[in-house]
Amino acid sequence: MVVELTVRTRGKGLHEITERVESVVRSSGCDVGLCTVFIRHTSASLTIQENADPSARHDLEQWIERFVPEGDPAFTHTAEGPDDMPSHIRSALTAVSLSIPVMGGRLALGTWQGIYVWEHRRSAHTRRVVVHVGW
Amino acid sequence: MVVELTVRTRGKGLHEITERVESVVRSSGCDVGLCTVFIRHTSASLTIQENADPSARHDLEQWIERFVPEGDPAFTHTAEGPDDMPSHIRSALTAVSLSIPVMGGRLALGTWQGIYVWEHRRSAHTRRVVVHVGW
Amino acid sequence: MVVELTVRTRGKGLHEITERVESVVRSSGCDVGLCTVFIRHTSASLTIQENADPSARHDLEQWIERFVPEGDPAFTHTAEGPDDMPSHIRSALTAVSLSIPVMGGRLALGTWQGIYVWEHRRSAHTRRVVVHVGW
Repeated sequence: MVVELTVRTRGKGLHEITERVESVVRSSGCDVGLCTVFIRHTSASLTIQENADPSARHDLEQWIERFVPEGDPAFTHTAEGPDDMPSHIRSALTAVSLSIPVMGGRLALGTWQGIYVWEHRRSAHTRRVVVHVGW
Repeated sequence: MVVELTVRTRGKGLHEITERVESVVRSSGCDVGLCTVFIRHTSASLTIQENADPSARHDLEQWIERFVPEGDPAFTHTAEGPDDMPSHIRSALTAVSLSIPVMGGRLALGTWQGIYVWEHRRSAHTRRVVVHVGW
Repeated sequence: MVVELTVRTRGKGLHEITERVESVVRSSGCDVGLCTVFIRHTSASLTIQENADPSARHDLEQWIERFVPEGDPAFTHTAEGPDDMPSHIRSALTAVSLSIPVMGGRLALGTWQGIYVWEHRRSAHTRRVVVHVGW
């Protein structure tokens, strides 16, 4: 079973999609299997991060902002703006696909794990995420 | 088939689980398929690294220790100690899930590849790793 | 269905394999399913990156060259040369496996996504990549 989700981001940062992915698993009727999440973009990515304390997500965003900064004078791929090339690098360093086992009809996430779309562009985007559930 | 493994780490560093994952594949009876390993935590992660020379794993650990150091004054998520936020960042930069094809009833790992839990916290932890084998 | 591809690289950089993976999907007869790509090495990795403008791939390579440089005096794993340990680190930070849903008999890649083997060693290598297609 494959479902495409449309995720509207509001610019840089983590946008949680755990409940939407869980909903796909429920509707699939899968009891024991594997759920794979895939993002169809190269300037946004996926991550599983702590879902409890928002300060962890804040620090993660601040850290990558310093670590792969906009305006690096070495960049030549700048036609779409200063946030374009950092987005590609941040995507390469994080995940384009995540696979999560399904147990008892639910994602086998740990207590503190949430699934997030990580938007790397400054402006709001509509991102397409494909969810596959298999046995 | 889904099995949960309990992995006891001894603090920061790579803890090999290749043989335990291989054992799950053997007991599944799968000949050709896909094995997915998933870690249910956000302060430890998974990696496939060289299994021959321990100096590679030593250098990897030293490198990430310098690269995402403890005590970064920009961190605000510090309630659990100075190794907490670096753990989340290191997890985001490495893998929460790994998928390895199965051929001839065995993981299709290369000669020098081992599967490791990468503990990012200072102290020993009990980590839960879920292994799914599908066809 | 599992197929092993042999990929000849020409030293550091991204080597596209999208069409070869798509060809495995076509020959599998899979309509809706999941395609997983796995690289059997620890000094080359996989990534999905922009397939349109070569400047994005150029900047990505330049960035990682600065970020995980050769000749770091902290490295002890140097027997195979100055590009050996950086290769392991670059592999740990990128992907050893990628899972892409299959829809309508084709990989559900976004318009600008291509699948690449990322060679991290200086010299040309023959890399083995395993492709699994499941339902």
